[in-house]
Amino acid sequence: MKILVANLGSTSFKYRVYDLGDPSEPLLARGAVERIGSEIATVRIPAAADGSAPAWEETRPIKDHAEALAICLNHLSHPDHGVIESEADLAAIGFKAVHARGISGVQRIDHTVLEAMEAFNAVAPAHNPPYVRAMRDLAARFPSLPLVAAFETDFHRDIPEFRQVYAIPSDFRALGVRRYGFHGASHRYIAGRIAQLLGRTDLKVISCHLGGSSSVCAIEAGQSRAASMGMSPQSGLPQNNRVGDFDPFALPYLIQETGKTLDEILQILASRSGLAALSEGSGDLRDIEADAARGVLGARLALDHYIDGIRQLLGSYFVILGGADVIVFTGGIGENSQVVRAGVCGGLDWFGIQADEQRNREARGEASFHAANSRVQLWTVPTNEELVVARQTRDLLIQATSC
Amino acid sequence: MKILVANLGSTSFKYRVYDLGDPSEPLLARGAVERIGSEIATVRIPAAADGSAPAWEETRPIKDHAEALAICLNHLSHPDHGVIESEADLAAIGFKAVHARGISGVQRIDHTVLEAMEAFNAVAPAHNPPYVRAMRDLAARFPSLPLVAAFETDFHRDIPEFRQVYAIPSDFRALGVRRYGFHGASHRYIAGRIAQLLGRTDLKVISCHLGGSSSVCAIEAGQSRAASMGMSPQSGLPQNNRVGDFDPFALPYLIQETGKTLDEILQILASRSGLAALSEGSGDLRDIEADAARGVLGARLALDHYIDGIRQLLGSYFVILGGADVIVFTGGIGENSQVVRAGVCGGLDWFGIQADEQRNREARGEASFHAANSRVQLWTVPTNEELVVARQTRDLLIQATSC
Repeated sequence: MKILVANLGSTSFKYRVYDLGDPSEPLLARGAVERIGSEIATVRIPAAADGSAPAWEETRPIKDHAEALAICLNHLSHPDHGVIESEADLAAIGFKAVHARGISGVQRIDHTVLEAMEAFNAVAPAHNPPYVRAMRDLAARFPSLPLVAAFETDFHRDIPEFRQVYAIPSDFRALGVRRYGFHGASHRYIAGRIAQLLGRTDLKVISCHLGGSSSVCAIEAGQSRAASMGMSPQSGLPQNNRVGDFDPFALPYLIQETGKTLDEILQILASRSGLAALSEGSGDLRDIEADAARGVLGARLALDHYIDGIRQLLGSYFVILGGADVIVFTGGIGENSQVVRAGVCGGLDWFGIQADEQRNREARGEASFHAANSRVQLWTVPTNEELVVARQTRDLLIQATSC
Repeated sequence: MKILVANLGSTSFKYRVYDLGDPSEPLLARGAVERIGSEIATVRIPAAADGSAPAWEETRPIKDHAEALAICLNHLSHPDHGVIESEADLAAIGFKAVHARGISGVQRIDHTVLEAMEAFNAVAPAHNPPYVRAMRDLAARFPSLPLVAAFETDFHRDIPEFRQVYAIPSDFRALGVRRYGFHGASHRYIAGRIAQLLGRTDLKVISCHLGGSSSVCAIEAGQSRAASMGMSPQSGLPQNNRVGDFDPFALPYLIQETGKTLDEILQILASRSGLAALSEGSGDLRDIEADAARGVLGARLALDHYIDGIRQLLGSYFVILGGADVIVFTGGIGENSQVVRAGVCGGLDWFGIQADEQRNREARGEASFHAANSRVQLWTVPTNEELVVARQTRDLLIQATSC
C-alpha cells in the first residue's frame, strides 16, 4: 500500500511516498515544490538513496498546489525510475492537518472536514487557510484519490479535562475554546520510538519538539498527559515568528496606544513576533545562536527566553508525570542544537539530572547524552511525522475497508 | 509614626492603622466601610483587641471614599478611645496600588502617578479605575495628608529580563508590555517572615499566595525570580472570577461566534470567568470545596484545574530556583484550605517532598506540615500585606525627609 504524505505551506508542497505494504515501511521517494503561484516555482527531487533515480531540479511557472502535485506524480510514475505505476497506484494522500472545530483524529477529507477547518481560520491563521485552499485544489483535480487528514491535536485528546479547560464560561467552552496541543504526529512518533529504543512501554517521557515551531509534551505509557500549546498554534513556547503565550489584556492597551486594530495586532503576533522579534533579526535559531555567541544582545535575549520557557515546562511536566524516565529532544533545533540542549539540561542537579557535555556535543541521530549517574535519560531522536501520518492514513483505509 | 493603610475596592474602603514609631509595629486600629456610594453604606469597626475601644457598626448614606475616610478618621480620633489626636497625627496614608505605566516602587501619589495608573486602566480594569477615583477623592478632601502608593509590581522588578519579556516586537515592548507579577506586598512579606522563622537569609522559597486572587512566586535570598501573573492581574492562575492564562487567538473566534465585541469578551474574562465559571456557581473556594466533596462536577473541575495550575508552577519554580528549601502557603485559601494544600503537595515523592497529613489538617497560623523526611519544608504563614505597605510608606517618608 503506497501512500503519499503531503506537507503543505502557503506556497510550498513537500511530499514523501512510503510503501506500507512492506513491513520495513520503506521511503520510496521524496520531493519539494517551492514558490507555488509564481512564474519561478522550483521543483526539487533528490536522488534516490539507493541510486535508482537521479536528482531533478527545475524552475517553471506553477499556478497552484494541484499543478505541483501533478508534476510530482509525473516524476513518481516516470517509466525509467518511477516508484508508482500511475496515480491509481497511490492508496491515498495523507496530510498532517492542524486544527478544525469539533473534529480531530484521522479523517477522510470532505466538505464537512474542510468547513470545520475553515471555522478555525482565525485560530490558526498561518495554517488553516492555505491548507484548505490546497486541499480543495487537490480534491478538484484528483477526485479519485482519497485525501486523508491526520490532525495534530489527536494525540492530545485524552489529556484530563481539568488540564484542557480554560477558566471561561460554559458557553465559551461549548464553542470548542480550550487547550488542544499540537505537533501530535511528532510527539506520537517520539513516544513510540523511545519505547522501542529503551524496550519499555511504561515510560514517563518528556518530548521536546523544538524547531521552526516548538512544543513540549508530557507522555506516560504512550499517552499524552500535557502539551504546551493551547487553543492555537501561536501559544506555548515562542515560535520562530509567532508569539507564544501572551496576556490578552495587553491587547486593548496595544490597540489604544498604537491605533492598530485587533486583527492587525494579532497578525503581528502571528507573523512578526516570537524569536525573530526578540532577536530583532532572524527567527532561525542557528543565526540566533551564532549572534548570541558574538554577544549580540537581542539574540542572547531570544535564546535565554526560549531556553527558560522550555525549562519551565520541564519542571511542570516532572510534577504532572511524578518524575520522568527520559527527556527526548527532536525537531530541527532539538536534534541539532547542542547549545539549546545544554541550556535546557543544565543546573538540574537537584533533580538528579546530569548531561554528559561531550556526549551532548557529539550526539547525532538517535543518541543518548546523559551522564552515567543521571536519574533521567537524555536523548536526541530525529522525528518522523510523515511516517506517522502515512501509518494513520493506512489504518483509516483498512478500517474503512473492513467496515 | 502612625500610618493608615487603605485597601480600596470600587465600593469599599478597609483600613488598618499602625504605629511604626514603636519597634513592635503595633496595629492600633482597623475597620471597613462597604457599599460606598449608596444610602445603606455600612461602617464596621471591630473592638480593639485589648478592649480599649468598643466595636462600632452603623448603616448610613456615604457618597464617596473621601466621606468614608472622614467618618473613619472621626472614630480614630474619638476623644475617649481614639488612637490618633487628629488627622494631622497620621504621617501618611499608604495604598497597595496595582499597576501603572512606567512606574513601580513606592511613590508619593500625585498627578503623574494617577495618570500613569489611568494609562493602564484597560490592563487592570477591576483595579485601576476605582483606585484612581478614590485616590482623587481623598487627595481633594485631605490635601495636607501625604498619600503613598506601594505598587504590587515592585517586588518583581529584578526578575531577569529574559523571563519578563513576551516574544513581541520591540515597539510593543517599549510600550511597557511585559510580564510584571503582582501580589508583591504579600510575597515580600512571606520572603521576610519565612527567613525569620527559619533563621536563614539564603532560602529558596516558593510562595503560594492563594486567595480571591492567586499567584505563585519563586524567591531566592529574598529576591523574586519569577511570578505567575503576566502583564495583567487577570493572568496566571485562575482567580475567583478572572480567567487566568488564556490564548489571545481564541478572541477573534469568540468575536465571530458570539457577535460580542472585544471589550465585551474581555469584560467577561475579567469578571465572569475563573473558578466561578468552571464551577458554574460560586467562585469562593470554600463553596467549591464543599460542592466538590458532594460530587458536583463543575466544582470538581474548578478545584482540579486550580490545584493543577499551582502544581505546574511549583515544578517550573523548582527548575528556576534549582530546587527549594520551603514552600509557603498564604492568603485566605493557602492559610485555610487543607484540601488545596494536600492536593498541591501530594504525589511529589519523586522530588523527595512529603506532607504530613495530620499536621496539614491541624496547621493554623504559622505552622509547618511537612513529614520529618521531606526534602522541602512546607509551611502555612498568614500574610500581612498592610504591614508591608505601612513599612514601605514609612521608608519613603524617612527617605524624603533625609534628602
